[in-house]
Amino acid sequence: MSSRVRIEIPEGSGFGPQHLPYCVFAPAGGEPRVGARLGDCVVDLAVALDDPMFAQPSLNAFMAQGPAIWREVRERLQAAADGEFPAAAVHAVSAVRLQLPVQVGDYVDFYASIDHATNAGRIFRPDSEPLLPNWRHLPVGYHGRAGTVVVSGTEVVRPCGQRRTDSGTPDFGPSQRLDIEAELGFVIGASTPLGDRIGTEEFADHVFGVALVNDWSARDLQAWEAQPLGPFLGKSFATSLSAWVTPLDALREARIPLPEQQPRPLPYLRDRDPWGFDIELRIEWNGQVVSTPPYSRMYWSPAQMLAHMTVNGASTRTGDLFASGTISGPEREQRGSLLELSWGGTEPVDVGTAEHPDKRTFLEDGDEVVITASAPAAHGGRITLGEVRGAITPARD
Amino acid sequence: MSSRVRIEIPEGSGFGPQHLPYCVFAPAGGEPRVGARLGDCVVDLAVALDDPMFAQPSLNAFMAQGPAIWREVRERLQAAADGEFPAAAVHAVSAVRLQLPVQVGDYVDFYASIDHATNAGRIFRPDSEPLLPNWRHLPVGYHGRAGTVVVSGTEVVRPCGQRRTDSGTPDFGPSQRLDIEAELGFVIGASTPLGDRIGTEEFADHVFGVALVNDWSARDLQAWEAQPLGPFLGKSFATSLSAWVTPLDALREARIPLPEQQPRPLPYLRDRDPWGFDIELRIEWNGQVVSTPPYSRMYWSPAQMLAHMTVNGASTRTGDLFASGTISGPEREQRGSLLELSWGGTEPVDVGTAEHPDKRTFLEDGDEVVITASAPAAHGGRITLGEVRGAITPARD
Repeated sequence: MSSRVRIEIPEGSGFGPQHLPYCVFAPAGGEPRVGARLGDCVVDLAVALDDPMFAQPSLNAFMAQGPAIWREVRERLQAAADGEFPAAAVHAVSAVRLQLPVQVGDYVDFYASIDHATNAGRIFRPDSEPLLPNWRHLPVGYHGRAGTVVVSGTEVVRPCGQRRTDSGTPDFGPSQRLDIEAELGFVIGASTPLGDRIGTEEFADHVFGVALVNDWSARDLQAWEAQPLGPFLGKSFATSLSAWVTPLDALREARIPLPEQQPRPLPYLRDRDPWGFDIELRIEWNGQVVSTPPYSRMYWSPAQMLAHMTVNGASTRTGDLFASGTISGPEREQRGSLLELSWGGTEPVDVGTAEHPDKRTFLEDGDEVVITASAPAAHGGRITLGEVRGAITPARD
Repeated sequence: MSSRVRIEIPEGSGFGPQHLPYCVFAPAGGEPRVGARLGDCVVDLAVALDDPMFAQPSLNAFMAQGPAIWREVRERLQAAADGEFPAAAVHAVSAVRLQLPVQVGDYVDFYASIDHATNAGRIFRPDSEPLLPNWRHLPVGYHGRAGTVVVSGTEVVRPCGQRRTDSGTPDFGPSQRLDIEAELGFVIGASTPLGDRIGTEEFADHVFGVALVNDWSARDLQAWEAQPLGPFLGKSFATSLSAWVTPLDALREARIPLPEQQPRPLPYLRDRDPWGFDIELRIEWNGQVVSTPPYSRMYWSPAQMLAHMTVNGASTRTGDLFASGTISGPEREQRGSLLELSWGGTEPVDVGTAEHPDKRTFLEDGDEVVITASAPAAHGGRITLGEVRGAITPARD
């Protein structure tokens, strides 16, 4: 009989049985497969649950099954977490290689924080109303590049491109205003055919889970290229996704109502259930915490984003990813991008220590950014969302 | 021994052995597989070439092989076209069901026609310079929704959404300004990793072929939503792709220099070889030819588009699709969108006959649009690109 082991949960762990986020991991010398995290271990689900659906290099086959199966798997894991797992199913997280958890279909990025949109408006268009006329009527969004969504830890090469200059003629070279955007991403599990809409009340039938996103942005490329069709190369070089996808059910205790929406949205955008989340993010830049953006302040809910995205009959696919856009709160130390933290590059941010003072406006080569987040869980505990980490390497010739 | 057949090419066919476009087709009662067109027949490549790479529901596995294999397969087919094929490999085009030929990775849409961009600028911003400052410096583009790229013949359901009104408050309902955009699409075969660039001189090493695109557009949705992040729901409900992909090699005789580019592009955008194409498009609206856009007038070449799209190190995947944007010429009857043909809805277009006069600005339910194209081929002949066809069905409640 094969040996069995009990997984101990360290005191204060954000990865207890109330969380159980999913990943794709490769054990040393093995093929990538689906795992779930418990404490400091990753549980190989194909082994633990004896199901080949999990012996795959993405979560997509599992996610495509829909909410009844998601719930069943989660309940089986929670039951097993109190007892023992087959020893062959348990690996230390530190001993495995984490991969992109999802084969991304389409990637959509929204712009759902009123504080971020207001800040961006003030910085880019100082002489006019910061919010454009459409902003309070619909969650503004656009499609990003799905093929350059990379897993946390992937190095980000500084992109080159055409940079806006004061002369009106662009120059070419490495971005000099390389930025981050701290966001929450939502992963679609159960797809919908062309012509269908996903009402706000159907959100949990289709969205499998949540991951952290860093939507790296080259502001000088973006400023030059983005009229009239929106961001393109200023974003498409890399978008980092956390290796762990937190199931929507693990965020039940974090759900809160949205702040007030004024004017009242059109009927198709009205939330029947509250889909705000009390999630606290934290941005570390070279080890210094420079911001703690509160997701609770977001103006548009992800249920509204998904309802909007499909109201024209656009289909969805398993693996589609949509992100919230930069999460910023009203305070300076709650801003989710360096553009806002340095106010367009005019107010340097302190990223040094007492011994080694250091100031920055945008990212320099060698800089590392780590975004983490936590949320309330049952029994007064908290869960820790999987981090999204990335370091900048120099531009290539 | 199995029987063999000779495929006769009808006089004046645009599908002789100098063309040989690829498709994915399902024979009656059979599984989808890769075919090539010769005359009015589709040749089942898995059978004809005895290669399981073609027994797949997309061209992707074949396209991923790269240009040496593309050339070899084409040469084998051209050699066989002079003789006989196994009878089991040959189907009448009329007897098979054509499917989406490509599993699309990312879909990018450019804006590369100077006549189209100028017309759109004049219509949308009548009081300012029609071309924005960046337009002559880079091929403006954006990401569209890959999951709603559909094969020619798919019905297009009129999309609903928020429509701009004169009051400043949007209303909601079916689009009242439903439009087409006649475009050429380029399909990437050989992928590139993150960090690599595809120089203009490497175009033919990566681009497998060309297809026609109709980028359906809801102008009233687009006008309201598109600031500041570009088009979203006004485009994402459907983009139609021809069922046939013309290999790049079949367009050798159609290659021409671009019109002059002024100012001279930055070095990374300079074409060493001419990648303009002398391709004539034709737009039929309810059976009436309303426009004949000349691809020869495009300002930016597809090699420049691809070099631009990857200059920031963005990776490419087999199946990525990028389209030219609306193709318009300088004359009224060369405009590639109804927005331009009806000059923003102010000049109705005649789509009727002498017996049944009929005028239109934008698309009505039941309308059908067919875009076709042809190009010069060897020996003074012409090849016919696969059509892209679509009819409008009423909005759903």
